Amino acid sequence: MTITGERAGLGGVFAAALTPMDDDLSADHAGFARHCRWLLKNGCDGLAILGTTGEANSFSVAERIAILEALVEAGIPADRLLPGTGCCAIPDTVELSRAALTLGAAGVLVLPPFYYKNISDEGLFAAYSDVIQRLGDDRLQLYLYHFPQLSGVPISLGLIERLLKAYPGSVAGVKDSSGDVANMEAMVRAFPGFRVFAGTETHLLTMLRGGGAGCISATVNVDSALAAEVYAAWQTDAADPLQAQLTRVRQALEAVALIPALKAVMERHTGTLGWRNMRPPTMALPAAAAGKLFADLDAVGFTLADTS
Amino acid sequence: MTITGERAGLGGVFAAALTPMDDDLSADHAGFARHCRWLLKNGCDGLAILGTTGEANSFSVAERIAILEALVEAGIPADRLLPGTGCCAIPDTVELSRAALTLGAAGVLVLPPFYYKNISDEGLFAAYSDVIQRLGDDRLQLYLYHFPQLSGVPISLGLIERLLKAYPGSVAGVKDSSGDVANMEAMVRAFPGFRVFAGTETHLLTMLRGGGAGCISATVNVDSALAAEVYAAWQTDAADPLQAQLTRVRQALEAVALIPALKAVMERHTGTLGWRNMRPPTMALPAAAAGKLFADLDAVGFTLADTS
Repeated sequence: MTITGERAGLGGVFAAALTPMDDDLSADHAGFARHCRWLLKNGCDGLAILGTTGEANSFSVAERIAILEALVEAGIPADRLLPGTGCCAIPDTVELSRAALTLGAAGVLVLPPFYYKNISDEGLFAAYSDVIQRLGDDRLQLYLYHFPQLSGVPISLGLIERLLKAYPGSVAGVKDSSGDVANMEAMVRAFPGFRVFAGTETHLLTMLRGGGAGCISATVNVDSALAAEVYAAWQTDAADPLQAQLTRVRQALEAVALIPALKAVMERHTGTLGWRNMRPPTMALPAAAAGKLFADLDAVGFTLADTS
Repeated sequence: MTITGERAGLGGVFAAALTPMDDDLSADHAGFARHCRWLLKNGCDGLAILGTTGEANSFSVAERIAILEALVEAGIPADRLLPGTGCCAIPDTVELSRAALTLGAAGVLVLPPFYYKNISDEGLFAAYSDVIQRLGDDRLQLYLYHFPQLSGVPISLGLIERLLKAYPGSVAGVKDSSGDVANMEAMVRAFPGFRVFAGTETHLLTMLRGGGAGCISATVNVDSALAAEVYAAWQTDAADPLQAQLTRVRQALEAVALIPALKAVMERHTGTLGWRNMRPPTMALPAAAAGKLFADLDAVGFTLADTS
């Protein structure tokens, strides 16, 4: 992680961590700690737990807090965690964010309230303001989550500007999962010191060289070691072929739905059958699709790091 | 309400009830009971509380259960209630639905899990099945909620067919807020006995004459008396001019965002300032827009029923 200015600014390679589940679809706390420990040992600078990839919105608030507490209790350092806490209901967002802050999380990644659509910047500003004011906590490092394809509620540059002006010490950065590099670059240019994470490692090198913070990505669950090599080498020419290989792996993975794909890969390489558990409406990859995915990954020379 | 077959099938005019709030944006339980009593006295056959218009997704599960319990405690008959209970997380949907059943609600209106998009019918079938099986309650009368514009997760005819085959006693009907009359008519034709509610009173007469159950609508919060006149007269020619007038009122209202519009109308006609309270990201109508709305409503001869 990198320190910029007076505050610790998060940076580098973050996995949007998968949530392992038991056969009854409750969270597998021990398995989750194991997975997180393995990710931190294999290239992750931090872990964006309880996000889209972690199926957070398929868990109740109480379940999510229990997952978070169990993880820290199991020894995963809280200051490496960036939990997702954004819900449709502001009281839920506040409760989750407070739990994260109390445990010492490095920050919180906050979806906008995502049920209503065509929301004005004024409405989103009011929603984020309400969260920040109700928390009333100096430790808050809030990362906005721009993922219009899933949330249906984009985070505009105008909104970021208003929030940074009103809460300069609390609004720390953004995860941009839109896939639109021009938008990420515009945010980097517009807001010095604001930490811009690409939502995919495909853009990791581009972001780092352009002044971005790094990436927070689903597929880093399985390619963190390679992503870390890109991060370590980003100021040298050696980074380019590494990024090219990382992009090939990502492209093979993103050809199918990411959560089922990643859980299938984890099951294949670790032999742990529980990895096939996921909560409806997310469904396991059909066998044929999994077979094709594995072949595509083999074809680009993919291996999972250190599964011993 | 109409009885069809062996089970009580809901029918007629339902308001998707607004939720009044105190100035601190907590639910105004007494005000809500007053509003619901007034709706039932002025033409509503039932109340779809805690839905989109009720800003339900802006309340925590605990808040929603408290709202429901307070309403029944205040004397609103539970068998006139069709609470919304569909959340992103199945445990939340189960908890809310169980509370509704325990209180004796006529049914539950269940959004699909709405965070993930491009969900297969198989995934949605698994989600609804999980809810139904975890509830394990013979009293369950589940109404599906098809509102692709907000949920981003459409309910297909194929899904309904699968659910009706698997749970014929529990899956009772649908609210179709897509605005697509052809889709509503296709559901009526395809599934005899299945209760199809239009999501707007614009289609009330069309639905009733075509074998549909009625309407569940936001704007019925303010035009329930007129909607009830259409319902009472639907088998006669007298219904047509009433429907035409009802449609004019609806069109004036739907020219702006519905929740702010309806709360502004309630404030205007009742003089109760609390009606302007709503939870972010939903925002009050700007004064100019409210002025135009009021003028448009005056122009079509709109009045609020029995505000004495």
